[in-house]
Amino acid sequence: MEPPGNKRRATSYDVARLAGVSQSAVSRCFKPGASVSKKMRKKVMEAAEALNYQPNAIARGLITRRSNLVAVLVSSQMNFYYPEVLFQLTDRLSELGLRVLLFTIRDEADVETSLDQVWQYQVDGVISASYLSVDQHRVLTDRGIPVIMFNRYFADVPTTSVWCDTAPAVSEMIRHLRDFGHQRFGLLEGPAHSMVGADRMRNVRRAIAEQGGTITASVRGDYRYASASEATQDIMGADVRPTAIIAANDMMAMGAMDELKAVFGKSVPGNMSVVGFDGINSARFASYELSTIRQPIGRMADAAISMLIDRVEKPELSPERRVLDGSFLQGTSTGPARV
Amino acid sequence: MEPPGNKRRATSYDVARLAGVSQSAVSRCFKPGASVSKKMRKKVMEAAEALNYQPNAIARGLITRRSNLVAVLVSSQMNFYYPEVLFQLTDRLSELGLRVLLFTIRDEADVETSLDQVWQYQVDGVISASYLSVDQHRVLTDRGIPVIMFNRYFADVPTTSVWCDTAPAVSEMIRHLRDFGHQRFGLLEGPAHSMVGADRMRNVRRAIAEQGGTITASVRGDYRYASASEATQDIMGADVRPTAIIAANDMMAMGAMDELKAVFGKSVPGNMSVVGFDGINSARFASYELSTIRQPIGRMADAAISMLIDRVEKPELSPERRVLDGSFLQGTSTGPARV
Repeated sequence: MEPPGNKRRATSYDVARLAGVSQSAVSRCFKPGASVSKKMRKKVMEAAEALNYQPNAIARGLITRRSNLVAVLVSSQMNFYYPEVLFQLTDRLSELGLRVLLFTIRDEADVETSLDQVWQYQVDGVISASYLSVDQHRVLTDRGIPVIMFNRYFADVPTTSVWCDTAPAVSEMIRHLRDFGHQRFGLLEGPAHSMVGADRMRNVRRAIAEQGGTITASVRGDYRYASASEATQDIMGADVRPTAIIAANDMMAMGAMDELKAVFGKSVPGNMSVVGFDGINSARFASYELSTIRQPIGRMADAAISMLIDRVEKPELSPERRVLDGSFLQGTSTGPARV
Repeated sequence: MEPPGNKRRATSYDVARLAGVSQSAVSRCFKPGASVSKKMRKKVMEAAEALNYQPNAIARGLITRRSNLVAVLVSSQMNFYYPEVLFQLTDRLSELGLRVLLFTIRDEADVETSLDQVWQYQVDGVISASYLSVDQHRVLTDRGIPVIMFNRYFADVPTTSVWCDTAPAVSEMIRHLRDFGHQRFGLLEGPAHSMVGADRMRNVRRAIAEQGGTITASVRGDYRYASASEATQDIMGADVRPTAIIAANDMMAMGAMDELKAVFGKSVPGNMSVVGFDGINSARFASYELSTIRQPIGRMADAAISMLIDRVEKPELSPERRVLDGSFLQGTSTGPARV
């Protein structure tokens, strides 16, 4: 018998025919732990090899209801935080034999489209480092798809999430700035809808209230490098100029540093200090060496994956939150205040 | 009749039972172009809605032999070029209703594992922006899976590929440096196995040979920012110092700029000029504003996807190569030579 004609993939039926056994016998041979006689296994394996047959993960998924696919939602905006999260998740998931079905989200409308597809591909679960509404979250969980929220959660809805608590590190960061004599702070906040940004700036305001200092201006950016340019001009154009700028993420902090140098002729940290949040790799470039609050992205990815796998295996598990502390990382973008 | 018990997904059989029709009738209702009576469609759609049923893309893929999944292989090394390629491909593929099954490749062994899985998920095709051996390429194409090589190809094996030709832009870049009076060039090359790096540096050597100038040193890095530190020290430690450093990618060019400033006290472009290749977003940060040769990544992604879709629809198409020219982008990292 010839192998099936050019380019068509061999199926378990082809293997069964060539081996002279039933299709279900072929299936058993490829199912971990199923009982098959040695003789049967030999026949099937020889036929499978002759036909270049490999069992089909998707067909197996339809039977076991496990596809080994995990949908990962990340924002596609120009914030280098997301690629880092994505690559950490993908490396770790693939070590576990799980594959990433990638959804890059440009705006909220993209989420709706993506969720339709999440459903159609019968993913084992979803890890979302992107915007997701309460309704969208419910649609998935109602259908028995475990959802892990990465660095976000809902205040009023039970959510399985991993979250980075920045409060202790922010306290340390403000102390570091206070020790350098800084008393006037300009805030470069995230966009209005960002709960991460709101939480970070709440911690900043609280730490300044506790340790002393004034907020000279508070301006919003959109988390992208480019948005820091105008925001920095607004901060510097306010009645009182700050000695330090606190940005809600590293990308904007880097943009603020460059704007201060290029447009205001300020050296950092000679004339002004700048700090950020995230601890992304590009903030470690020697031109920035940003003082920042680092998220333990690798450990957060591990936590997200472990909670996901728990729920794939035991869907009845109740929601769970894991909170990992960020840590203050001192770079060279902070120094003594020039008052 | 109750919807199927909590959390189990409704199948076409559940819908058939509730609608009082056959399962094949349900299938027809969800197959584009299949003929179904209005009455039948109404019954089925009502049942489907009551049960929250959505047709299963994977099961449909098993029948049509189309999964609408595209495997994308990218290197997971710390070179910001790869996330940009990945996000461009993913955005564009999802506009076409195609999903990315993501494989991040750390080393060559990862490719083997990934290919097993590519096969098992019955992807419609593969776009590889990562290492792939001739054998690995053949295993896929022998099985009828179209493979598009992104910014790489094989010299001796027919390959469908999209490639960036840097020769004309390199010629322009060397002219730009020569016009600034540069005569001595240090080369920061890519790793030995990189065909992209070899091609770029071949173009650089040829342009210098044609337009005049000497190569003072030639040192290899691994494309990562950090590797530029030692390489720059070697270039600066050679018998003759260059007035310009030409790096095989932007990440190393940025590392070289920072090393020149921090360790050798050289301002760029005041004391020395630095150029790179790729045109990645972070090279546009104001601290670098690198003069570089930009790859038209978006157009390359479009080309890769269009060639892939052509081959999914017509597997008999012969291999095809599309070559797009890079363009020289003048930043502020180049200026008059200080001899």
